[in-house]
Amino acid sequence: MKGLRLYSYWRSSASWRVRIGLHLKGLEFEYVPVHLVKDGGEQNSAAYRAVNPMRTLPTLEWTEADGTVRRLSQSLPVLEYLEERFPAPALLPADAFLRAKARMLAEMVNSGIQPLQNLSVMQHVKQSLNADDKAWSAYWNTRGLEALEAAVQSTMGRFCVGDAVSLADVCLVPQLYGARRFGVDLAPYPTLLRIEAECQALPAFQAAQADRQPDAVPA
Amino acid sequence: MKGLRLYSYWRSSASWRVRIGLHLKGLEFEYVPVHLVKDGGEQNSAAYRAVNPMRTLPTLEWTEADGTVRRLSQSLPVLEYLEERFPAPALLPADAFLRAKARMLAEMVNSGIQPLQNLSVMQHVKQSLNADDKAWSAYWNTRGLEALEAAVQSTMGRFCVGDAVSLADVCLVPQLYGARRFGVDLAPYPTLLRIEAECQALPAFQAAQADRQPDAVPA
Repeated sequence: MKGLRLYSYWRSSASWRVRIGLHLKGLEFEYVPVHLVKDGGEQNSAAYRAVNPMRTLPTLEWTEADGTVRRLSQSLPVLEYLEERFPAPALLPADAFLRAKARMLAEMVNSGIQPLQNLSVMQHVKQSLNADDKAWSAYWNTRGLEALEAAVQSTMGRFCVGDAVSLADVCLVPQLYGARRFGVDLAPYPTLLRIEAECQALPAFQAAQADRQPDAVPA
Repeated sequence: MKGLRLYSYWRSSASWRVRIGLHLKGLEFEYVPVHLVKDGGEQNSAAYRAVNPMRTLPTLEWTEADGTVRRLSQSLPVLEYLEERFPAPALLPADAFLRAKARMLAEMVNSGIQPLQNLSVMQHVKQSLNADDKAWSAYWNTRGLEALEAAVQSTMGRFCVGDAVSLADVCLVPQLYGARRFGVDLAPYPTLLRIEAECQALPAFQAAQADRQPDAVPA
């Protein structure tokens, strides 16, 4: 995988997950910013649609040894692919059942929370339904994090599943950032906050942080 | 995995995906119906919360050789787990990049469409936002299926990825059933309809069909 490029937006939680994975595996990549809001959303531009017709972020692009340019989107499949090609350090436990649990926790964020409060859904809630998009997003974050706090009780160690970072942690950290943006009170989720602090102590999580990306807008 | 039991609801598309996977792999299982609407939703009962505190469907339950009872939820992690324990027939392509593509297409349904139109979201749209929940669901199905129709153009053979059934097809078939319920015009998606017909010719897909489950309600 030569010439790794990640099409990303600093605050996109799906982009953020892949940034964490790339940094954890020590893979160098070029950061290509795609602004989700400017000019009606750069993901809708002809240039980006040529890269990813689905207009979603992130997209990972690379060149194989034979010169083939390949692209892949959807954060969890991208991370599973990186895991297969670069198995160490692992993003999934060695034990099959624990591996399934890590994927389950990751999906509780990936399909259980994030899709309900991504930008296009919030815009639809606000513009088409004339409803409070921030309250909508806070509702689904609260509901999802409550379930996640309960679910990690039987799997956690230092991280969500035992004492090693997994896909579950990779999904958790960007989601908590989003929840704070929507004003969600995180005090009822002490386990998730403790695990977040463990993650944030690691250089790979620090490097992937939204605020540290080249397209980040200062608060 | 002895004493396989699937907690399922006939029309739940996530339950349906796991039913397809179990039938494709030739695994016998006991069907345990959980009615998502009756009595305020049986998933909220104390009995089911003891099985799955997250109150989601499906849950797969089994007993290991040493007597340990295990449970797993979230349809794609359940299917990945079945794939690891019972590799044949495969639900994912042998080639790593095609395997990633199959997972990507599956996620376009699993996180891109289904979460936006599941029962709890529809209830919230109707009851809390006083909006048209069926129009809401049709909107997200249309948007998602349009992206999926475009995405399969570069991967399809007889099925979504080449000529073998994969997780992508397992997600596609129940989603199209849902789209019809919400009145979505499927004519703009001829490739998806063709692949659906290929799938429906297979006994495993027939056995998993919503209408054939013990808790199905006749139309």
